[in-house]
Amino acid sequence: MNNGTEELAARVAAGDRRALARAITLVESTRADHREAAETLLDRLADPSRSALRVGLSGTPGVGKSSFIEALGLRLVERGHRVAVLAVDPSSARSGGSILGDKTRMERLSRDPRAFIRPSPAADQLGGVARRTREAMALCEAAGFDVVIVETVGVGQSETLVSRMTDVFALLLAPAGGDELQGVKRGIMEIADLVLVNKADGELAAQARRTCADYAGALRLMRVRDTDPEGIPAARTVSALTGDGLDEAWATLERLAEWRRENGVLARMRAAQAGQWFEDELRAGLMALLTADPGLERRLADLRAEVEAGHAAPAAAARAALAPLARALRDA
Amino acid sequence: MNNGTEELAARVAAGDRRALARAITLVESTRADHREAAETLLDRLADPSRSALRVGLSGTPGVGKSSFIEALGLRLVERGHRVAVLAVDPSSARSGGSILGDKTRMERLSRDPRAFIRPSPAADQLGGVARRTREAMALCEAAGFDVVIVETVGVGQSETLVSRMTDVFALLLAPAGGDELQGVKRGIMEIADLVLVNKADGELAAQARRTCADYAGALRLMRVRDTDPEGIPAARTVSALTGDGLDEAWATLERLAEWRRENGVLARMRAAQAGQWFEDELRAGLMALLTADPGLERRLADLRAEVEAGHAAPAAAARAALAPLARALRDA
Repeated sequence: MNNGTEELAARVAAGDRRALARAITLVESTRADHREAAETLLDRLADPSRSALRVGLSGTPGVGKSSFIEALGLRLVERGHRVAVLAVDPSSARSGGSILGDKTRMERLSRDPRAFIRPSPAADQLGGVARRTREAMALCEAAGFDVVIVETVGVGQSETLVSRMTDVFALLLAPAGGDELQGVKRGIMEIADLVLVNKADGELAAQARRTCADYAGALRLMRVRDTDPEGIPAARTVSALTGDGLDEAWATLERLAEWRRENGVLARMRAAQAGQWFEDELRAGLMALLTADPGLERRLADLRAEVEAGHAAPAAAARAALAPLARALRDA
Repeated sequence: MNNGTEELAARVAAGDRRALARAITLVESTRADHREAAETLLDRLADPSRSALRVGLSGTPGVGKSSFIEALGLRLVERGHRVAVLAVDPSSARSGGSILGDKTRMERLSRDPRAFIRPSPAADQLGGVARRTREAMALCEAAGFDVVIVETVGVGQSETLVSRMTDVFALLLAPAGGDELQGVKRGIMEIADLVLVNKADGELAAQARRTCADYAGALRLMRVRDTDPEGIPAARTVSALTGDGLDEAWATLERLAEWRRENGVLARMRAAQAGQWFEDELRAGLMALLTADPGLERRLADLRAEVEAGHAAPAAAARAALAPLARALRDA
């Protein structure tokens, strides 16, 4: 490890927020030398004893995620927590980084020295979304943040991705009536531990309660996981505006995490998540080996096109694609 | 291709059911020489013009899947279809092959020359579940079956797997009241195009209608996919016993498949599925290369254990695991 990386690691470990921001920029980079430094940094900072409560949070645009996180985050730092907020936005490769892009949306929280907010990176910095986020989370933990909230927009595969790197998962919804309720992708219900209906204040309060009851009913129609305690998944109303329900929502998530810790579920989840991460890295690495050579890469693209058009059987095509690698290994 | 494989290919292409059964046994084998023959066979039989309507069907144990498939299958063969039924049972590695194991459950259909029923293989024959099923499906299509039903038990990842190799997906449920409704895994709702409540006959008829209405309500709470026509996902009642609703259920699936075909959705789904299959084969092949050498394999297991225990960072561990392969390629 060179001196720069050494010093960066020490400053991150000391909880320096500017060093943390720089370290995350490093793991977001796809430049080969940055990549190597990032891996060294992560390996150096790996410390199982520094671990946060990892909270996944999803919600459709306009539901008030930022206000919710700000209100919740301010309560948590008041109670002595150090809170990091990361954004996962798979669409940012197109949009150039949308969520949390405007830090002023969490103005008070972002100014608080006990909090750290990291927007989704812009398009040109984007490496693998999962890798980047897992590594940013590891860095936040190494910097002593004991609550890490991973925010994502409810539009696709990102929730599954986030649920595979967090301890508990909450879904934030807006009050809605009848047909408007159709905004939730079915798969998201599968992974939500807690459904929160926001904006339960003023004239929307009654509607929020009805929406909450509807979702509670829908959740009851679906199987409770064996590894979950009584009452999970749950549905609750909250108001980021008045603060109503925030303490209860947090208590539910904390109790669930505690239950999972005491029953050995959390240790199993995290070991499985780490194993999954390792496997993702292995696959990415293997694929990188296969595409590192321009000739091999072209061949792979040709074979895939043949398969997609139905002109070649996938197994035979894969075998053909891997032949050079197999030969190299045999002759090594 | 040797003479045996050549002859087998010709007989499968001619629609010979015994040859088809032998060919499937070949793709189920994990012996290296069988594997090679299987790939040759599949490559030889690949013919995009021979393609079936691929139907995924899931349901919890006891819901009456076999009676449903038998009743539906007999109607389809009467109308001139040739119907193949395949079973996916990831649990059979433990149970030794449970679903469809008892062919007498579909006695009439299995005796019909226009139908082909293949039980889930016993434990010792089990290769990769996905690969085996995709290949068996390709063989059924090559043998001229124009409807392939892939049956799976509703207990885990198998539905996702089946939905990734079929054109339409139906979920069969039993009538139930109140708390009993909790039997469905949430993720399955995500992939169902059609929810069918079976046993809508006799004294269960009213309860089946109520259950159906409940699920229709739950489906409405979730987002309709952009790529689906109006009214999908749908919920209907059926009775395998009386035949009520079977024609309507089939018509719904056929119309959906037709809609997807006309709107280019089916072509995109199938190209994506073939691409996914190719990628699965690539990954399996790459992983096989990595574990072909006992020394490499031990090293991989050690590194994974380190990662799961939190003692090593996944990216650095993966890089270390891949180093021998990278060296071999560089020196080739």
